[in-house]
Amino acid sequence: MDEFELIDRYFVRSPPAEAHGVMLGVGDDAAVLEVPAGFDLVAAVDTLVEGRHFLSSTPSRSVGHRALAVNLSDMAAMGAEPKWATLALTLPAVDAAWLDGFSSGFHALAAEHGVCLVGGDTTRGPLTVSVQILGLVPRGGALRRGGGRPGDLLVVSGTLGDAGGGLELARSGPPADAATAKLIERFDFPTPRVQLGLAARAAASAAMDISDGLVGDLPKLARASGVGAHVSIERLPISAPLQEKFNAARARDLALAAGDDYELLLCVPPVKLQQLQASAERLNLTLTVIGELSAESRIRWTFHGEHFAPQVTGYNHFG
Amino acid sequence: MDEFELIDRYFVRSPPAEAHGVMLGVGDDAAVLEVPAGFDLVAAVDTLVEGRHFLSSTPSRSVGHRALAVNLSDMAAMGAEPKWATLALTLPAVDAAWLDGFSSGFHALAAEHGVCLVGGDTTRGPLTVSVQILGLVPRGGALRRGGGRPGDLLVVSGTLGDAGGGLELARSGPPADAATAKLIERFDFPTPRVQLGLAARAAASAAMDISDGLVGDLPKLARASGVGAHVSIERLPISAPLQEKFNAARARDLALAAGDDYELLLCVPPVKLQQLQASAERLNLTLTVIGELSAESRIRWTFHGEHFAPQVTGYNHFG
Repeated sequence: MDEFELIDRYFVRSPPAEAHGVMLGVGDDAAVLEVPAGFDLVAAVDTLVEGRHFLSSTPSRSVGHRALAVNLSDMAAMGAEPKWATLALTLPAVDAAWLDGFSSGFHALAAEHGVCLVGGDTTRGPLTVSVQILGLVPRGGALRRGGGRPGDLLVVSGTLGDAGGGLELARSGPPADAATAKLIERFDFPTPRVQLGLAARAAASAAMDISDGLVGDLPKLARASGVGAHVSIERLPISAPLQEKFNAARARDLALAAGDDYELLLCVPPVKLQQLQASAERLNLTLTVIGELSAESRIRWTFHGEHFAPQVTGYNHFG
Repeated sequence: MDEFELIDRYFVRSPPAEAHGVMLGVGDDAAVLEVPAGFDLVAAVDTLVEGRHFLSSTPSRSVGHRALAVNLSDMAAMGAEPKWATLALTLPAVDAAWLDGFSSGFHALAAEHGVCLVGGDTTRGPLTVSVQILGLVPRGGALRRGGGRPGDLLVVSGTLGDAGGGLELARSGPPADAATAKLIERFDFPTPRVQLGLAARAAASAAMDISDGLVGDLPKLARASGVGAHVSIERLPISAPLQEKFNAARARDLALAAGDDYELLLCVPPVKLQQLQASAERLNLTLTVIGELSAESRIRWTFHGEHFAPQVTGYNHFG
């Protein structure tokens, strides 16, 4: 199987779908896409490197899923509807079983979100996966990091720390109990909060996805918005499986510093909270108020009212 | 210098330029871009891997230049005007001198073509560079591989084989003469034929860039167009430096099989040739007719009228 057969077999799906705005898909020098009038284009790229973003034991179906999921999460954070993706895949060798899993994980999540794979590049080298995602948002309607205002509530979706806990447990081999399996599943198959992001356009003043951990990511949002923040650490949503497998202090550190849950961090004016809660309920998703933005220029962390200094830091590739 | 300082220092340039359609650039979860009415969006991605697409001795300014150039070449092949790029950069470590060269090579070519870097991802791992390029073409006006018709002339820009010769010579160390320096320069700093691609929209029926070598790429174009082709190998444009450094047979093989020149392969109805030649002259670029498309279903290669079977193949990562 050579490079071009590989692309045909694993990555060319149905013919270019004009209904999805794909005028020309995989197989030419570039894809041609139709952006409807009244929409802005939203573009992001995220890379997964073997040994850094996933273990060599991580199933390839998970790698395919996650490569797209982390990009869909960026669309969610912008309130954008994901439409098209390109895939730059660097492989040490052609391994049919690996590619079967990878492409099925990728295509299943793409189908779930109506995303078309429209192009890519397949090269030989150390295992690296870059996905670039393109989405649409009504003109001027993108959620930015910089829109937060003092008094806005800080809201997170779902629970924090699960994926970080799962990664730690996965290093010890296959799961031996249900809680472990659940946490590893959260690492291997994160759920990008795309529908919540769309709903948040009408309610949130700012948003980002928590990809590098709350302690690392919240300061970026606060800086972009020119505000400070206060977080009540005891409010962080910790799942039952995480509580079961880790002691309270370690679970809290994972919730603060691990990023791979791909939950959303939203700034919500108090009058808009109920509306957003209602949207989240329809999506079977819990939202938790963990604090609020302030006019100070720093992040204040408290634990049951007492000053708290996180002993962990967010993910940083060259930190 | 950590990941975020690195991005600020090397990759954030002028503030987001609304004049360039950038509503939100580097620094949020995604970029927000404005696609004007009446245009299609054109998207491509290309990856360079150390040791495969460039030598570890290749200057980093060249790596930065080439990572963008190979993508600009895809825009040229579509007749699209390049507008925005994202960069997924995987680095083994932070090396300030390497990054200075890389970013200056990238930004210089971006500025030349009015391309804005609007996003990216910087990760740690084996040196790999993926650039995704976004461009615009008037609605329905993209040049495709599939538009060629029997009787169209096969036309190539510039000269072929120089970059392949340059790569071979670069393996032996720094250039000792002007011809060698010229060939290595063609490998290190290829010139994407963006302006020619724009001009070709009005004249060519099909186009692609020669990135994997003529013997590998022409069959792809012929297949997409549902036609055959005849190439007169003695017409292949071979530069004086290539003739100086390689014997005739080797120069011919490089012109047939080496891809890194990033010249355009165009299908041109005979009545449109003069118009395209005039455009190329204004760009100081030579065009050479090397053959024509046919109604057969195969590619016929001749050398001074005699049947010729190329003993070389195009580049294939897993061939």
